[in-house]
Amino acid sequence: MRYAKGHGTGNDFIIVPDLDDQLELGADVVRQLCDRHAGIGADGVLRVVGRASGSAPWFMDYRNRDGTIAEMCGNGIRVFARYLLDHRLADGPDLVIATRAGTRTVRQEPDGALTVDMGPASIGRPSWAVIAGRRYTGVSVFVGNPHLVCLIAKPIAGIDLSQPPEIDEDAFPAGVNVEIARVTGDHVLEMRVHERGSGETLSCGTGAVATAVAAAGGAGEWPGTPGQIPWVVDVRGGRLTVIPSATASLLTGPAEIVAEGETNSSWLVDPVVTAV
Amino acid sequence: MRYAKGHGTGNDFIIVPDLDDQLELGADVVRQLCDRHAGIGADGVLRVVGRASGSAPWFMDYRNRDGTIAEMCGNGIRVFARYLLDHRLADGPDLVIATRAGTRTVRQEPDGALTVDMGPASIGRPSWAVIAGRRYTGVSVFVGNPHLVCLIAKPIAGIDLSQPPEIDEDAFPAGVNVEIARVTGDHVLEMRVHERGSGETLSCGTGAVATAVAAAGGAGEWPGTPGQIPWVVDVRGGRLTVIPSATASLLTGPAEIVAEGETNSSWLVDPVVTAV
Repeated sequence: MRYAKGHGTGNDFIIVPDLDDQLELGADVVRQLCDRHAGIGADGVLRVVGRASGSAPWFMDYRNRDGTIAEMCGNGIRVFARYLLDHRLADGPDLVIATRAGTRTVRQEPDGALTVDMGPASIGRPSWAVIAGRRYTGVSVFVGNPHLVCLIAKPIAGIDLSQPPEIDEDAFPAGVNVEIARVTGDHVLEMRVHERGSGETLSCGTGAVATAVAAAGGAGEWPGTPGQIPWVVDVRGGRLTVIPSATASLLTGPAEIVAEGETNSSWLVDPVVTAV
Repeated sequence: MRYAKGHGTGNDFIIVPDLDDQLELGADVVRQLCDRHAGIGADGVLRVVGRASGSAPWFMDYRNRDGTIAEMCGNGIRVFARYLLDHRLADGPDLVIATRAGTRTVRQEPDGALTVDMGPASIGRPSWAVIAGRRYTGVSVFVGNPHLVCLIAKPIAGIDLSQPPEIDEDAFPAGVNVEIARVTGDHVLEMRVHERGSGETLSCGTGAVATAVAAAGGAGEWPGTPGQIPWVVDVRGGRLTVIPSATASLLTGPAEIVAEGETNSSWLVDPVVTAV
């Protein structure tokens, strides 16, 4: 099976080209591929499916490393777009890609970065999180999934995010992604994120959008101002840029393919099934 | 640059074929290749060098993921041998491989497992380690590198090895690898390991040997008995078998190549230098 490995700000993916939609990637196979020691290793799998019909010429079949299906991934779709561009499967600058969260357009910027429309965002109620015994106040932001953004005044580097934050379970019965962030300059933020179910990660696309939305709210720039200035969000894995918006926030960042190859499916317990 | 990825009991490596000894892998390049998010990801790099002269036809140039040089690796040399066999670069069943710790012979067993001579081992003084607030007594075993093996009576699964054990720094001024192990059957052990500098790992070849040596000592089978029975050592990443010996312990275990491909060196900060 052909594959590529790529990442966007440290969020990494195994890309499986399956233009004719022949592969059935079971949860077991996804878990084995994503195993960082006994497999190839990644945060998730992006299956690249070409579509003969429909308005979007490509479908991004995204699976989390635990084998579950995810609707969209702001870092993953940039890596998906980079793969299409690198392999001349699509021309830029605009690529239309279907996801389980609807069709998205990815634009290649002149400097090579990729911009994706992240859909609607909204600011909710204040809430709190306890991280390493310390209570932080924050605001809930919904970007397709729930976030709690805690903007603080002190540097964020030393905070221990190795354990799941304690949260208000009445406010977030299905859990919440927790961002801890600080304004470090004019429209510049540093951000760390604890993703529900994954722990601290190097980057989170919806988390960067949520953080920029919260910061825009705090700066009186929500839901958007004419000629608004983008927010730079520095995450552990690199730098993202966000133009927050109630209807279609734009997330810009790098994406890179680092290797391409072939994997012998003999070591996969549950062999990849080829559809009839 | 061509590469393969393989593992032995979950200890994983990037194999870089460089038969003509043309590549200079700097520490920065090794760190980037081994980066599990922005690179290919592995515990280390095995450069496969063919030798025109000398008694060993192959040289294993092994680098730790932090870019430092390591002399030998009991899991790595099996993966190295598997690569040679898979690519028909060498015939089995015996492969002679030079390492920085001397020349080793790897034998392919009839069932496909690989056996490597791990060199001399010796039992030292009793010592102790404090793990998650609890004190364990153990015995020091030297297998080219220092180990403290704590054989306990209770199951080892629940022990928290996320933090470095507290050790007797007078006894181990350069640190020590700590194994916690239990006899689970006749010549069968379960073992977990905290490697100095790396934390808990899925497997450790010298640690498996050290544990079998300590168990043999406890069973009155040291330094070896005629017709001795091998010790099975179950580690988190799989099953290893050890015939302990003061002069040349034998370690047997699986090794597997899971993927092969090419990496574009454009993303490497410090490009791979080709020797003149």
